[in-house]
Amino acid sequence: MSSVLEIIPLGGIGEFGMNCMAVRYEDEMLILDAGMGFPEETAYGVDVCIPNFDFLEEYRDHITAIVLTHGHEDHLGALPYILKKFNVPVYCSHFTAGLAESKLEEHELTNDVLLHRVEPRDVVDIGVFTVEFIRVSHSLVDCFSLAIKTPVGTIIHTGDYKVDETPVIGEPIDLRSFRRYGQEGVLALLSDSTNATVPGRTPSERAVIPAFEEIFAEAGGRIIVAAFASSIHRLQIVIDIAQQFNRKVCVLGRSMQKNVEISDRLGYLDIHDGLLVSLNEAKQMRDNQIVFLVTGSQGEARAALSQMATQSYKGLMIDEGDTVVLSARIIPGNERLISRMIGMIYKRGANIIEEKRRLVHVSGHASQEDIRIMTEAVRPKFVVPIHGEYRMLFRHKEFVKNHLGYAEENIVLIENGDVLELDGERAAVVGKREIGRTFIDDTGFEEIESETIRQRRQLAYEGMITLVVTINAETGELQSPPEIVTRGVRGFDSTNGSLKDAQRVVTAAIAGASRQTLADESLLKEHVRVELKRFIQKLTGARPVIMPVVVQV
Amino acid sequence: MSSVLEIIPLGGIGEFGMNCMAVRYEDEMLILDAGMGFPEETAYGVDVCIPNFDFLEEYRDHITAIVLTHGHEDHLGALPYILKKFNVPVYCSHFTAGLAESKLEEHELTNDVLLHRVEPRDVVDIGVFTVEFIRVSHSLVDCFSLAIKTPVGTIIHTGDYKVDETPVIGEPIDLRSFRRYGQEGVLALLSDSTNATVPGRTPSERAVIPAFEEIFAEAGGRIIVAAFASSIHRLQIVIDIAQQFNRKVCVLGRSMQKNVEISDRLGYLDIHDGLLVSLNEAKQMRDNQIVFLVTGSQGEARAALSQMATQSYKGLMIDEGDTVVLSARIIPGNERLISRMIGMIYKRGANIIEEKRRLVHVSGHASQEDIRIMTEAVRPKFVVPIHGEYRMLFRHKEFVKNHLGYAEENIVLIENGDVLELDGERAAVVGKREIGRTFIDDTGFEEIESETIRQRRQLAYEGMITLVVTINAETGELQSPPEIVTRGVRGFDSTNGSLKDAQRVVTAAIAGASRQTLADESLLKEHVRVELKRFIQKLTGARPVIMPVVVQV
Repeated sequence: MSSVLEIIPLGGIGEFGMNCMAVRYEDEMLILDAGMGFPEETAYGVDVCIPNFDFLEEYRDHITAIVLTHGHEDHLGALPYILKKFNVPVYCSHFTAGLAESKLEEHELTNDVLLHRVEPRDVVDIGVFTVEFIRVSHSLVDCFSLAIKTPVGTIIHTGDYKVDETPVIGEPIDLRSFRRYGQEGVLALLSDSTNATVPGRTPSERAVIPAFEEIFAEAGGRIIVAAFASSIHRLQIVIDIAQQFNRKVCVLGRSMQKNVEISDRLGYLDIHDGLLVSLNEAKQMRDNQIVFLVTGSQGEARAALSQMATQSYKGLMIDEGDTVVLSARIIPGNERLISRMIGMIYKRGANIIEEKRRLVHVSGHASQEDIRIMTEAVRPKFVVPIHGEYRMLFRHKEFVKNHLGYAEENIVLIENGDVLELDGERAAVVGKREIGRTFIDDTGFEEIESETIRQRRQLAYEGMITLVVTINAETGELQSPPEIVTRGVRGFDSTNGSLKDAQRVVTAAIAGASRQTLADESLLKEHVRVELKRFIQKLTGARPVIMPVVVQV
Repeated sequence: MSSVLEIIPLGGIGEFGMNCMAVRYEDEMLILDAGMGFPEETAYGVDVCIPNFDFLEEYRDHITAIVLTHGHEDHLGALPYILKKFNVPVYCSHFTAGLAESKLEEHELTNDVLLHRVEPRDVVDIGVFTVEFIRVSHSLVDCFSLAIKTPVGTIIHTGDYKVDETPVIGEPIDLRSFRRYGQEGVLALLSDSTNATVPGRTPSERAVIPAFEEIFAEAGGRIIVAAFASSIHRLQIVIDIAQQFNRKVCVLGRSMQKNVEISDRLGYLDIHDGLLVSLNEAKQMRDNQIVFLVTGSQGEARAALSQMATQSYKGLMIDEGDTVVLSARIIPGNERLISRMIGMIYKRGANIIEEKRRLVHVSGHASQEDIRIMTEAVRPKFVVPIHGEYRMLFRHKEFVKNHLGYAEENIVLIENGDVLELDGERAAVVGKREIGRTFIDDTGFEEIESETIRQRRQLAYEGMITLVVTINAETGELQSPPEIVTRGVRGFDSTNGSLKDAQRVVTAAIAGASRQTLADESLLKEHVRVELKRFIQKLTGARPVIMPVVVQV
């Protein structure tokens, strides 16, 4: 135990999102990233989930810092929640800090948190660990890989990256530093698998410029560009080309406005004076003088683009002559929403440019040839695929094995909660921690019990029935007919006489109940619940939730 | 009114699935197809929806027949439901009839329905309409387009089709008949848009043979092919290649077994004696002697493939050395499920062949160049894109306009419920019928009210609370503390004292209620509901459903 390194992913392995990982040596633990995820349980009032941090409790006094690779929600979004439990210093880039601060403000945590802003190539000692921040390219700006020197060897955590020699903002990926570590010897490379199924190289952020120039040259009317608010390079491209084509830019949607504001304030975006205009100014301008930069590329009903397509967004509606550019990928699960939105836009008479028709989007993640470049620069002893569903992790392994000459035993596939032990020679999963997800409620940004979600799922599936029986506490006799109230229940209501039949069933059940049952409220509840359940199941085949209430008078 | 044709789509326009259309002339109405759809409301206990047939009630005496193009669920699945309402004769191919019969049996309708089996090129008079059944190629067998002669001109409804000159089973698409109608003059072509965004030609069903031959040649262990149970050409290919490579075929999954049985019985599949083996026989065989043909290509949790990947399907589990072929497209909305299943299969150590890596699937729908062939064969006066989301309908229109020289006014985009009027010269939407969907309950195959679904959605979102107050009927005083029972509610329970606070709030509300409120049960219910709602919203921000019950004693 005393001379090994432990790596324990809390999220992001075998799933997209919730990237978070503990790195532990003796009584010191670093947390790398604290991301949120986007669960499928939206019907149950939750849009967001975070790793369950419970297992960290036993290491409360050992956690020394949280280190963030970059500012995307799936790496940063759980930060307020983990900081509420473990208030430790945070290390990240200036831009990531800008996004983090805005998040901490929403949770009223700003004054309680120590945020260390670091530069590329900064080297920071955090207890037994020495962390170097290595600049990588990605769709966001100011992103890092982490090189962590530990007593058993150096591990490199890539974060999200691609090998972009010509980013729009800032300098290219710092391959020289990766090679330096490679020469010194790297024990393990924890490496982004998001695009491990994609052959070839991921195009540079600049690759979309020609398509945008064409679109601007062709468009006679308004141009509406929908992109991820965090695609800062993309925003700069649209801003530059707008300038070039004498159009003003109007930014719409809360997250887009926030990110433009932060990146502008911190000097990441280069915006000519007077280029940005307000919505009111934009409405006064001729159609060929304006570009709208908007949220909603995923078809989200409440975002700017969907509202412009279906009704009106602050008085703005998509119309004939408009050109809409969907400058984003389709996140799996959103296909139907997006397809429907595209239909609505066509219906309004506008032209649509999608990724499939022109190169208006590039990924921010390493494809197979990027993975080759990274892996050969670092030449680690062990490759540990991270970030992605199992499908991507396995394809990552396959690629490294078949194309980079790694032996099976030097590629380690792990799962959330696995305790991966490294001693400098060996890498092995030696244990498993109980790891889960915690849902965050839509309305209060509070954690919500998974039991609550389970109950909601049950209610949703076949509805529910409240059954109230009023009993004379002394005689055990019914005082009035049982009250039965239904919600979301099929084939059982007051219109077809079945409600009356059910009342008779419950009445008979009480009349036939033993003295013991009548004397014990919980026995009585269960007794009438089971009888009513049988009756309804026989009548309709359904099994709604039944909540019995016994009133003693 | 008297000399026009009306075309009224009940489903399938602006959506995938639920294909159904009414064609009306004076007091005669044909129904073309009766398909089901697959809604997103699965959380609420419904996997299936059908068109709402209510508006047909006023034409009850006019409906003369239902004509089916082919047997896919999205064209056939609503047949039992519409026949229960309107028992009219059905015209369809032999194979479609086989599938229809099996469906009618499930609904115990077999003896009540008149099924007319027709051959390609059969011409049937149905009142004022004359319908010719034209053979088309598709992923299913025995599929028709319909040429319908009406008093105002001929309309052609393509059904689902592609232009396949070399299908595996049966003869190629009967382009000659389409051209014959084209020469005689066609008023309107109602034409499949599913693949209208896809350039080029759709490959022949035979196009997957080389990939399958390679896979069979390479595989040393078991082969598991997952396909749509209705892809009959595909099943024949797998059967043929299994024979060629000396493997036996074991068919797993209810719908796959049913379709193999029906197509074999009706002579569509050509299966060597002894080729099919039972699961028990298959288990006895060596790994390189067997192919499993299974359901579950969409990652459905209860289907054979998912179960083989995660636990065990009747004692069968995917293992190292197995080759799994996903010989199907990904239906939009299923991406996450499928990706997760692929991960599980990799985890089991098996090899997976997906559509992206080899040509193991081709579409059954017309791509743009197929649409060109069809449209130029028929040369209709009007093109009416059908079958697909708006996105596809609009791209269909764009293609016909830009590449086939059709004028804007000769391409008619319609929506579900639109009344498209044709008089031989003009085509115009002259009205709109109220059309909706009807959900079918998972457990009983019964229709379910949309109000019920609305209630389930509400319960799911924030849970619910039952509030029981027991009142002395004479004095209006509370007889005992209010009972509050919660289900799926966040941040409000007995552990944090909030339940007691809520009881106090309700008690105070009753004490402060007017005589009038106390005397009127519904007023009193609403009074306590609103007070409790305010309390909870202030406490947690949430707004669960509150069901008040008043017991008078």
